[in-house]
Amino acid sequence: MCQLMAMSANVPTDARFSFSGLVARGGGTDVHRDGWGIAFYRGRGVQEFRDPQPSVDSRVAALVKSQSIKSELVISHIRQANVGAVSLENTHPFVRELWGRYWVFAHNGQLRGVRKALPLGRFQPVGGTDSEWAFCWLLAQLEQRFDSWPRSPKLLGEFIAGCSRQLHQLGVANFLLSDGRALYAHCSTRLHWLTRRAPFGVARLKDIEMEVDFSRETTPNDIVSVLATEPLTVAEPWLQMTPGSSLMMQKGRVKALD
Amino acid sequence: MCQLMAMSANVPTDARFSFSGLVARGGGTDVHRDGWGIAFYRGRGVQEFRDPQPSVDSRVAALVKSQSIKSELVISHIRQANVGAVSLENTHPFVRELWGRYWVFAHNGQLRGVRKALPLGRFQPVGGTDSEWAFCWLLAQLEQRFDSWPRSPKLLGEFIAGCSRQLHQLGVANFLLSDGRALYAHCSTRLHWLTRRAPFGVARLKDIEMEVDFSRETTPNDIVSVLATEPLTVAEPWLQMTPGSSLMMQKGRVKALD
Repeated sequence: MCQLMAMSANVPTDARFSFSGLVARGGGTDVHRDGWGIAFYRGRGVQEFRDPQPSVDSRVAALVKSQSIKSELVISHIRQANVGAVSLENTHPFVRELWGRYWVFAHNGQLRGVRKALPLGRFQPVGGTDSEWAFCWLLAQLEQRFDSWPRSPKLLGEFIAGCSRQLHQLGVANFLLSDGRALYAHCSTRLHWLTRRAPFGVARLKDIEMEVDFSRETTPNDIVSVLATEPLTVAEPWLQMTPGSSLMMQKGRVKALD
Repeated sequence: MCQLMAMSANVPTDARFSFSGLVARGGGTDVHRDGWGIAFYRGRGVQEFRDPQPSVDSRVAALVKSQSIKSELVISHIRQANVGAVSLENTHPFVRELWGRYWVFAHNGQLRGVRKALPLGRFQPVGGTDSEWAFCWLLAQLEQRFDSWPRSPKLLGEFIAGCSRQLHQLGVANFLLSDGRALYAHCSTRLHWLTRRAPFGVARLKDIEMEVDFSRETTPNDIVSVLATEPLTVAEPWLQMTPGSSLMMQKGRVKALD
């Protein structure tokens, strides 16, 4: 199994605090030693860092922790391989272009029989994971359903939630998908989320000795939501998603999806 | 204008030496301050680093210079913007998947009237450069010509060389394209290359005080070719490509293309 993390905010926000908690689980406080990756949307572009090395030992991860990269939408993943070798091409998040937008996908869980159950279109997996196959299938579904990038994030989200239910039937499909405008998340088993807004307080990570006083880092209008397989901080009101449910995050605001 | 660099080798090889020379031109010894990027093929995967910051000031570039990332095929680019804003989405190299392979593209030059002259297929640019447009067109041409990934790199290279001539008619099309198996290069105006093989000697960079004794870093069977807009080292026999010509590099060996 793997662990997921995402952030959505209404202003470009530094995700180092959450990332530091996540990567401690990549061979430090937990067993997800088989690579890690993070994608930051910046404008229409994506800045990605990935490494098949355990994140606790990775110099690239150390760089990401030491730099203030501000983004409104971040997706990250640490991997414990079950299907597919430990290699760069099997390292999440995966990125593809559709309708002139970069789509980013990360998955936690195991899906059975994807090759039979999920017919692909033009997007083909490069590596050997069930996750990348599912991503390629999702993009094919989107392309079949919509002629161009849908104007309504809600409409898009509801269609993705429908696809999620098909994935859910094949096994465990906790996943994060984004087109840079909104983040779509599906929970098969475990996903937690949290919204921070004024009045901001102090947050303390669960996995390492680190705390941040968000009142010093933010303005009163900031809204920042964080999503993670397991809560990243102590003493904050993380909410657990119901298995089988989907949600979307846009500019820090969270909406349930049918 | 921009500058290009590529490396092809028959064993995973550290490209730090060439990259260090190139990035010095990103605001140090030359004016290419509008971002930079590098893509390392590792297995079927691509590890990429990119930054819209000048490469001389970039902490990400400092990390790449300080790490020994071994790869058989590397493409890098430093940018001086002419068409398209300075932004992450306009930062080369560009990456797309076709036939289950990642394709990497970097371009130096300016192409006029791409929107009219180069009809696109399913690949759409995310940013606003003529370069990314040309890349999307090239992939459409490939997909139209071949049903699946051609087994023969030479056949593929000759088709790409044919497409290059069309780009060449629109302006300056010095570019590098790879599917991870071979590197295809077209020269409109300036591109130089060099093959290093036994007996290896000492090489000294042109732009910064740095030298390497390759006899200590290699085995007698290693073959490493480097390609760059301007020669990166002094006192080595760089060859200048003829304007209008194309070549391919595979496992360090260079072949001319018709």
